[in-house]
Amino acid sequence: MRFIGKDDLDDLTLGATLLGNGGGGDPYQARLMALQAIEDFGPIPVVELDELSDDALVVTVAVLGAPTVIIEKIPSGKQYVDAVNALGSYLGKPIAAILPVEVGGMNTLVPLMVAAELGVPCVNADGMRRAFPQIEMTVFTLAGLSASPMALADEHGNQAILDTTTNRMGERLVRTAAMNMGLANAFASYPMTKSQAQTGSIHGSMTYCAEVGRRLRAIQVGTGTWDEFFTFTEGRTIFEGKIVDLDRRTTTGFARGTVVIEAFADQSRTMRIEIQNELLLAIEDGRTVLTPPDLICMLDHETAEPITTEQLSYGQRVRVLGLPCAPEWHRPGMLDVVGPAAFGYDVDYVPFEGVRA
Amino acid sequence: MRFIGKDDLDDLTLGATLLGNGGGGDPYQARLMALQAIEDFGPIPVVELDELSDDALVVTVAVLGAPTVIIEKIPSGKQYVDAVNALGSYLGKPIAAILPVEVGGMNTLVPLMVAAELGVPCVNADGMRRAFPQIEMTVFTLAGLSASPMALADEHGNQAILDTTTNRMGERLVRTAAMNMGLANAFASYPMTKSQAQTGSIHGSMTYCAEVGRRLRAIQVGTGTWDEFFTFTEGRTIFEGKIVDLDRRTTTGFARGTVVIEAFADQSRTMRIEIQNELLLAIEDGRTVLTPPDLICMLDHETAEPITTEQLSYGQRVRVLGLPCAPEWHRPGMLDVVGPAAFGYDVDYVPFEGVRA
Repeated sequence: MRFIGKDDLDDLTLGATLLGNGGGGDPYQARLMALQAIEDFGPIPVVELDELSDDALVVTVAVLGAPTVIIEKIPSGKQYVDAVNALGSYLGKPIAAILPVEVGGMNTLVPLMVAAELGVPCVNADGMRRAFPQIEMTVFTLAGLSASPMALADEHGNQAILDTTTNRMGERLVRTAAMNMGLANAFASYPMTKSQAQTGSIHGSMTYCAEVGRRLRAIQVGTGTWDEFFTFTEGRTIFEGKIVDLDRRTTTGFARGTVVIEAFADQSRTMRIEIQNELLLAIEDGRTVLTPPDLICMLDHETAEPITTEQLSYGQRVRVLGLPCAPEWHRPGMLDVVGPAAFGYDVDYVPFEGVRA
Repeated sequence: MRFIGKDDLDDLTLGATLLGNGGGGDPYQARLMALQAIEDFGPIPVVELDELSDDALVVTVAVLGAPTVIIEKIPSGKQYVDAVNALGSYLGKPIAAILPVEVGGMNTLVPLMVAAELGVPCVNADGMRRAFPQIEMTVFTLAGLSASPMALADEHGNQAILDTTTNRMGERLVRTAAMNMGLANAFASYPMTKSQAQTGSIHGSMTYCAEVGRRLRAIQVGTGTWDEFFTFTEGRTIFEGKIVDLDRRTTTGFARGTVVIEAFADQSRTMRIEIQNELLLAIEDGRTVLTPPDLICMLDHETAEPITTEQLSYGQRVRVLGLPCAPEWHRPGMLDVVGPAAFGYDVDYVPFEGVRA
C-alpha cells in the first residue's frame, strides 16, 4: 500500500489532463476536491488488487454528465457516497475498495476523494487508462464484465439503480437518467470481485498517470526531454504546427468538432483531428495516422501544457502526441467497443506502430 | 375476501373501459391475460385493506409506456414479477398484496394477473379511480406518499430502480427510462404500509368499477336505464351529438387532440373536448363545463359502447357522460396535481355540480 498526499496531486493531475485526450472533464477541478479530502481525512491509501482480501467487492465511481454543466456544479462528496452506498445496499455487500473507471480526465481524481470519504482504499488500476465518452468503452466490457447494476445520484437525493443485460443498454439508460438529473451526477458501476478485477482491469494506471505527469512536468521546467518521455510512454510526436481551422458543435449530448493543423515545416502538410469529447482520430493529408483506442494528446508547443478541446483556438501553435493505448486493450472485441467504427468513423484501425516519427 | 373468476371479468373490463376516459390502454387486451392467470392459478383473491396484517407492505403495479406499442407488445407476467420482486428486494421486505394504481383502462386488470402470478391478493382500492397519463397524478401524492422507490422491467431482463424525492421527478425519470426500454414495461411503484394505504387510497375501486360495468351492460342489453346508471354514479349526460371535427397528433410521448361534437337537437351548439391520452376538458360554446379530475366518457350513441380516443372518427354519433371523480380527490392540492393547470389548460376548475343536465 502507498498513500497519495498533497504533494502527489500535482503530477497526477497533470498526467490526468494529458491522458484525458482533450476531454474527460477538468482534472484541476477534481484536484481541489481530492485536496480537501486529504485535508479532512489524511493521505488516501492506494492498493494493488492483490492486496485486497479474496472476497472483496470493488466498484468504479465517476462523475457523469456534460462537461459544461460539471464545470458549474461538480457533484459533492455526499452524492458519491450516496451512489456507492445505494449500489452496496442493492448488492447486499459492503464495498471494500474504489476502482477508477477511467484514469484520464477528472475521473482520475474523483475516486481518490470518494475512497477518502468512505474510508476504503483506491485501487491502482482502471478500465481505460485514457478518457472515453461512454461507459461501455472499457476493458471491463472486453472481459465480459457487466457495468450493471449501476447507481446514479444527484444533489437533491434522487437516485437511480439500473440493471441492464448489456453495457451498451446501460449507457443509454444512464445517459438519459443523467439528462433528467441535471447532467452532473455521481455514478457507481461495474461492481466486481477481486478476481474479476485482477483479470479484467488495466493494472498500475494511477502510478502510470503520475509518472506521465512527472515526466511531462520535467519537460515543462526544462529538466527532462521528450526522448525521456517517449522512452516511458512508447509514444511519438505525430505533428507540430498551427491551428488553421476549427469547427466545434454540441450534438446529442457530446461535444463534436474538427480541428485542422498546418505543419510548421511545410505549409502544404495538414493534419485533421476529429473530436467527440476527446481527440479521437488523426488524419494527415487524407491518410489515417492514429485511431482509437490509441491516444491523441495536444499540447501548447511552447509550454508543453495539455490543451483541452474547449481551450482550442485559431492560430494556436501545438504539438500533437500519439501514445499507445494500454496493452490490456488488445483483446478480442477491442474494435467493436472502442475502434473507429464505435465512434461512427468509416476508417480502419491503424496499429500504433504505423505512426510516423 | 372475495374472488374474481372468469364470470366477473366482463363487467370489470367494460367498467374499466368506461373509466379509462378514452385512454388508459385497452382493457380487453389485459382481460385476456387475467383470464389466462385465472386458468393457471384459479380465481384471484381480492381483499379490503383492513383484511391485511398490520405490517403488510403493498405496492402498485401497472403497464407503463405508449398505447401504440403496448397494443403490439404487452408485458408478460414475468416482467411484472421481475418489477415487483426488484422492488421488494430493494426494500428488503416481501410484498403482501398488489394495489392497482389506476382503476380505469388496462391497469385495472393487470394487477389481478400479477397478484395471481405472485400468489398474493389484490386490494380493492386504487390511486385514481379513472385513468390519468402520469404517475404522480394519484390521491397517493395528495396524501404525501412517495411513488419511490419504483421499479421498471422490460422483456429482456433490463431493470431500473428509481428513488426520487418528488413524484413529479419520478415521472420524468421513469418516462425517459421507459423510452429506452421499449415503451411497454412492467412498473411497480408506491410501496406503502397498510395504514398508509388505508388513509391514502381510494377504497372500493374494483367493486365500483365492476358495478359501473354491470350497469352499463344493462343499458346495452336493454335491461337497465341511464337513470339507474346515474343514480349509482351520480353522473349526467353532458352532450349528445355528431363528431364534426377531429384533430389528433402524438407529441412528447402523449396522444393529444381535439374533438368537436355538434348537438343533435340544435346544430348551433357544439362541444369541444381536449385530449391528452384521456378525454380531459369539455367546453361547450366557449364555456368550460367539465374539467379534470372529473370524468369525461364518450360512448357510441346507439350501442352505449365506450369509445377510446383511437376509435374516434368523423361523423360518429356519440353520448358524452360526465361523472364525478372519486370523493377522495377532494383534498388540498388536488388542482396542483390533476386540475386543468396540471395539463397546461388555462381554465378554472369547474365543480361537477355545475354541469348541465
